[in-house]
Amino acid sequence: MAVDETSAARAEEEAILPTGADDAEGVTSEFVNEVADRLDAGDDAWLRASVSDMWPADIADLFEALDPERRDSLVSTVKDVVDPETFAEIDEDLREAILDQLEPHEVAAAVGALNTDDAIDIIADMDDADREDVLARLPEADSVLIRRGLEYSEDSAGRMMQRDLLAIPAYWTVGDAIDFMRSSPDIPEDFYDIFIVDPRHRPLGALPLSRLLRNRRGVHVQDIMSTDVTPVPVDMDQEAIANLFRRQDLVSAPVVDDRGRLVGVVTVDDIVDVIDEEHEEDVMRLGGLSGDDMYRAAFQTTRSRFPWLVINLVTAVLASLVISRFDATIEQIVALAVLMPIVASMGGNAGTQTLTIVVRALASRKLSRTNAVRLIGKEVIVGAVNGAAFAILAGLMAWAWFGDPMLGGVIGAAMIINLLSAGLFGAAIPIVLERMKIDPAIASTVLLTTVTDVVGFFAFLGLAAAILI
Amino acid sequence: MAVDETSAARAEEEAILPTGADDAEGVTSEFVNEVADRLDAGDDAWLRASVSDMWPADIADLFEALDPERRDSLVSTVKDVVDPETFAEIDEDLREAILDQLEPHEVAAAVGALNTDDAIDIIADMDDADREDVLARLPEADSVLIRRGLEYSEDSAGRMMQRDLLAIPAYWTVGDAIDFMRSSPDIPEDFYDIFIVDPRHRPLGALPLSRLLRNRRGVHVQDIMSTDVTPVPVDMDQEAIANLFRRQDLVSAPVVDDRGRLVGVVTVDDIVDVIDEEHEEDVMRLGGLSGDDMYRAAFQTTRSRFPWLVINLVTAVLASLVISRFDATIEQIVALAVLMPIVASMGGNAGTQTLTIVVRALASRKLSRTNAVRLIGKEVIVGAVNGAAFAILAGLMAWAWFGDPMLGGVIGAAMIINLLSAGLFGAAIPIVLERMKIDPAIASTVLLTTVTDVVGFFAFLGLAAAILI
Repeated sequence: MAVDETSAARAEEEAILPTGADDAEGVTSEFVNEVADRLDAGDDAWLRASVSDMWPADIADLFEALDPERRDSLVSTVKDVVDPETFAEIDEDLREAILDQLEPHEVAAAVGALNTDDAIDIIADMDDADREDVLARLPEADSVLIRRGLEYSEDSAGRMMQRDLLAIPAYWTVGDAIDFMRSSPDIPEDFYDIFIVDPRHRPLGALPLSRLLRNRRGVHVQDIMSTDVTPVPVDMDQEAIANLFRRQDLVSAPVVDDRGRLVGVVTVDDIVDVIDEEHEEDVMRLGGLSGDDMYRAAFQTTRSRFPWLVINLVTAVLASLVISRFDATIEQIVALAVLMPIVASMGGNAGTQTLTIVVRALASRKLSRTNAVRLIGKEVIVGAVNGAAFAILAGLMAWAWFGDPMLGGVIGAAMIINLLSAGLFGAAIPIVLERMKIDPAIASTVLLTTVTDVVGFFAFLGLAAAILI
Repeated sequence: MAVDETSAARAEEEAILPTGADDAEGVTSEFVNEVADRLDAGDDAWLRASVSDMWPADIADLFEALDPERRDSLVSTVKDVVDPETFAEIDEDLREAILDQLEPHEVAAAVGALNTDDAIDIIADMDDADREDVLARLPEADSVLIRRGLEYSEDSAGRMMQRDLLAIPAYWTVGDAIDFMRSSPDIPEDFYDIFIVDPRHRPLGALPLSRLLRNRRGVHVQDIMSTDVTPVPVDMDQEAIANLFRRQDLVSAPVVDDRGRLVGVVTVDDIVDVIDEEHEEDVMRLGGLSGDDMYRAAFQTTRSRFPWLVINLVTAVLASLVISRFDATIEQIVALAVLMPIVASMGGNAGTQTLTIVVRALASRKLSRTNAVRLIGKEVIVGAVNGAAFAILAGLMAWAWFGDPMLGGVIGAAMIINLLSAGLFGAAIPIVLERMKIDPAIASTVLLTTVTDVVGFFAFLGLAAAILI
């Protein structure tokens, strides 16, 4: 008994100290290590005190950084003190395993405490039985809103939007609006704009709170509202919405149904998540992945990475077919086999540089009919000039290595040809794919490396066959 | 005379129609083409009407999408009707060329109309003479603020922050705050939080406007303010600030000097730009570029891409050195030269998949002592399983192609070894680099492809030399 009291007192005292999840820094690796040690020591009081004091995103980071056993142990220790938003912040692949440790009524309580958009995100990933179970435990009003949200397609405005919003008629004054906000318990927790609607609930304008506050009570809201508001259709894709927020520096935007009626609001904190998500997708795609598979089991990971490697095998075999046409030449001059990967690899890397610039320019719409040809021209020049520079470097190296100036000349000429064509195709492939409505980010890399391998081997071995033998 | 009037009338009528820069879509390629045609036709009235109606970010996109001659022509046609924010939105490499077309007093007028952070961005890129010229033309108060901002390092909170903010003492009531906002002409145009400060101007808390509006006039602000506000030090890096906004879902954050006094506020629209910028940097880095060089001249572009290609040449030569050790083997079995790029290329691609996952996990702090070893283990298993699958595929193909089952066995064994080591090194290299405080995003790719080339060639040719000869 005395021991228990002491340890509880100690734990309380420690909980008052700034816990490891620093407000500015977030979850540091030192903090994760500390948590791991406390878990191993069974120091539940410290863990509960620390976690209850953390931001939801930080708790999610902590769960993600722990190994599965410690994660499970932490979940069961702290599940009743974590902010429910944590479950919305956590990686989808992990969420299921974590929610499995909660009782159905605990899941329902957590979902019920969330904003509609976050609740829908969580519910959408559940299997049918779990979903119905949770929905049945929620208040009628919540479950209706969630079911309605589930009808919108993933990544649409309908899924992202918050249904709680403040819409007022155009004839109201600043004073009416302020009185309404003071007296109505049902208005949203945090919001930045009030929307002005017509009698059919179609948005007429938006009024930033800072502007509302700058005006006297008698001023009519329609005289001070912004009318250059772009309504977001419920089925608009999240990437397009993110672009809208970026271009117009928005903090919130009204969402309208197909009859133009105001049904929700998208806020900038969701947009930040969308931008991160799209970013993640781009990086994964460039790395030959269909998505982040860090929390998937080895077998699923293997299977999801397989298709990309098959495509790569096919392109590698194409390059091998080119080499096999020159097997007689290689038999006579084995130095060709030694040097040929250099030409192909330099072309691949120079082409990737060009490709990266052009794919990004297309994504951010910096390319049009009027400047595309010029850009391709510039990339060809850059390829030719760098080709000439590396022709000299590689040529001198080959000459010194194998004592044959002609071999140096051949690798130099092949280098110029391959870097020039890397510039040409690195720029042209994504532009042509975009015109054909194929996502240049996915298909360009494979096509380009096929071109630079094939051209590289063909130019080097072909010139060697013609000149050296 | 009659003709002029008709064309002016026509232009005015057209200007009333929705112009091409759609509010939801932004600058489409059709719109850029239309602008190009109008420029060629000298239809200044249409151009001025269209541009004056566009969002600054869209005008910047339009300038960026045009070829240099048309861009210059558009700038001189519309320079007095564009929103000054356009100059802040435009790509740095282009901005100088565009500002060169403005008279010094026009530049000063544009800079003077901007928020401090945008003004500083523009001024910072100018050469010293231009900068002094513009600063001399600004009102004293503006130029002092800008000079002070320039003293902070680039990418720091000091540069990003807005100095206009609303700070009030803790003893004020909701009514005091509202009356102050109504009567004071000097408060910022758009803001989301009011900051509560102590007598030394140190932030005590923040009050979202929506919460202010929900409370009655007599309530004291200190009773309703949020106190879990993380102040941002002026020298905090923009990437750390972006993480803070992400983790805490902020729309604004107070910036404090080294004595803890409130000196500015960072808002979420700047954070969205930072996230895009950091994203751009990641993608460019992965593509072997030091930055976006689309608007740089061919010569500068060539020079900036050269160093990365030199590094790649060195690693390619390393791989060639491995091949050269087996030149006698290749002379006897030329099929080895045909097949060897397949093994190296498959290793490179499988390794890049692993690398992408691990680099991203490190960047988003999902990796810690407790789960790093497990992740490396998983990647080795994934590599071994995919290695076995491609060993069968490549082995059968080699057997069918060259009619030698032993050759198929050799390429299969080499494939397993190389994909297994790709998994091991793809995971281990970034983790080790991170421990050594080297940015894994830059250095990992080069190191990994060197490993997969060297291991791939060595395993394949070495096994061939041992078994087939």
